[in-house]
Amino acid sequence: MNAFTSIADLRAACRDLPALDDQMANQARDRQGMLTKPPGSLGRLEDLAVWLAGWQGQVKPTLDRVEIFIFAGSHGVTARGVSAFPAEVTAQMVANFEAGGAAINQLAKHAGASLTVIPLTVDQPTADFTIAPAMSEQSFLHAINAGYGAVKDRPDLVVLGEMGIGNTTAAAAIACALLGGEGADWVGRGTGVDDEGLQRKASAVDDAMTCHGEALSEPLEALRRVGGRELAAMFGAMLAARHQRVPVLLDGFVTTAAALPLAKLDPNGLAHAWAAHVSAEAGHRRLLEALQLKPLLDLGMRLGEGSGACLAVNILRGAVACHNGMATFAEASVSDG
Amino acid sequence: MNAFTSIADLRAACRDLPALDDQMANQARDRQGMLTKPPGSLGRLEDLAVWLAGWQGQVKPTLDRVEIFIFAGSHGVTARGVSAFPAEVTAQMVANFEAGGAAINQLAKHAGASLTVIPLTVDQPTADFTIAPAMSEQSFLHAINAGYGAVKDRPDLVVLGEMGIGNTTAAAAIACALLGGEGADWVGRGTGVDDEGLQRKASAVDDAMTCHGEALSEPLEALRRVGGRELAAMFGAMLAARHQRVPVLLDGFVTTAAALPLAKLDPNGLAHAWAAHVSAEAGHRRLLEALQLKPLLDLGMRLGEGSGACLAVNILRGAVACHNGMATFAEASVSDG
Repeated sequence: MNAFTSIADLRAACRDLPALDDQMANQARDRQGMLTKPPGSLGRLEDLAVWLAGWQGQVKPTLDRVEIFIFAGSHGVTARGVSAFPAEVTAQMVANFEAGGAAINQLAKHAGASLTVIPLTVDQPTADFTIAPAMSEQSFLHAINAGYGAVKDRPDLVVLGEMGIGNTTAAAAIACALLGGEGADWVGRGTGVDDEGLQRKASAVDDAMTCHGEALSEPLEALRRVGGRELAAMFGAMLAARHQRVPVLLDGFVTTAAALPLAKLDPNGLAHAWAAHVSAEAGHRRLLEALQLKPLLDLGMRLGEGSGACLAVNILRGAVACHNGMATFAEASVSDG
Repeated sequence: MNAFTSIADLRAACRDLPALDDQMANQARDRQGMLTKPPGSLGRLEDLAVWLAGWQGQVKPTLDRVEIFIFAGSHGVTARGVSAFPAEVTAQMVANFEAGGAAINQLAKHAGASLTVIPLTVDQPTADFTIAPAMSEQSFLHAINAGYGAVKDRPDLVVLGEMGIGNTTAAAAIACALLGGEGADWVGRGTGVDDEGLQRKASAVDDAMTCHGEALSEPLEALRRVGGRELAAMFGAMLAARHQRVPVLLDGFVTTAAALPLAKLDPNGLAHAWAAHVSAEAGHRRLLEALQLKPLLDLGMRLGEGSGACLAVNILRGAVACHNGMATFAEASVSDG
């Protein structure tokens, strides 16, 4: 559905981004001012309710249909020794997701969200991006379309996450390509590499910058050349959500890096996204700052799988519960100061 | 039940504080190391699960019975013009809680928690503590006992919150009495006072320090002289929870100030408490730092009512869901690096 058949198609779709419904956001803001609490005293919960109202186009937003998408991919760059875990863990964890044993299974259930796991030819790693583009144009579009097609029939909220041994190195490479600096500025310990592993990650990113050169200055090309299938799919899902005016919660470093090209293509490209949390992965805070995204949670998490974003769903549910359910000063006969 | 009949009784009870079950906490920590995730990757969720296990005395903690207690009191210090809202709002908000129209009603429902509102002779304000002790010893013990008796039959988790126009000034006075500084260091805008109101709050605290002098160096005496009934009751509930080894979530500035005397009486007095959030009320961050409590949430909230703590209940639920429900590496046949 809505498959992009060329990068030119995709690029055109990235130029056609709807805005939120200002009128509905303003009505929601007015409602916040009438509820039985000092003005502004619910802090960011008020902003969340207004943001959801604006994107959903209803004064009282709903979170009946919250959909989590976990995309999984395998990375040729693992040959460079960039992870503390062997590459086969990606497929093993996909099986664990399907069996219900991973963190995200527990968190999704608790958040009242549906969980869809989409493995992207996990048995076939991308090319090692330190020496070649990670994906051909065809393979890249296939992954984009898998993500774009996953978001259907306008859910109330989309939560994005990923699994892919090696993918914090890909995320660091995208950040480095589009925001500058060098490998060491963007890599972190991922699943738990030692100092030498960290050095190998930095070198892999630096080598990728040298290998691909100027080609990386174009956001979609950076995503194709030094990203991975699950990152491309998350980008596709972000774009689909925007086209349907669906609000999105971003998870950690990898998810945010996958969203970065949309911000580079349009300064308001991520207006429909909220950073759910800041990961303990070193580059994430820096990346969020570059994107001017202020995370909801800061709990030292660094698991991926959409776990941080899923945990934040209940913050949004709390915001919506207050916004929709509270009495106004008039209704409750409370003096409004 | 278990009523304290003298301050000496109460003081003795504050010296008899059980510790958590180390063995159970260690078993829970071991379990975290076996779950299908990189070690430590769930960040503070892991610490929360271990903390709950230790206090509850079970490797897999439960959150079936989460009880929120909101204590309400009226403050004579409101005569000093320390609030943006009139004093009668305390009673009006108690009615709003009972009618289900306040923020905490929505958040409690969403958190799957029971909500008990305990008004403490709201029609009868405490004395203006800038010129006299807020409470007589009898009145103080009555409030302590109301809180102590509220926590019954060892619930899984207690959430504390409050309502009381004027009580951020009382909280600032307790903090100033027990941690030093001057009024201006501890007061904030509360429900939204202007610059002159803020100055009146600082002066009220400074006047209270002068009025009560050295008597304020004793923690329980500080609570009686410059606190309020809902603060004394929260202190009583904190103590009851500790005696039953029940973990507690603290809400904002006022709740934390009510807990402060227990930390002054015993350096481990708040080991069973977790700071649920840091409020936008100016003194709260400083108070948490003094207590070495690191809040779970930082969302710019400043409503009280237990709202921030209640929102954090779902973070704990997420932590417990992962801890109890995830597969181990062995169970899921995932390579553990």
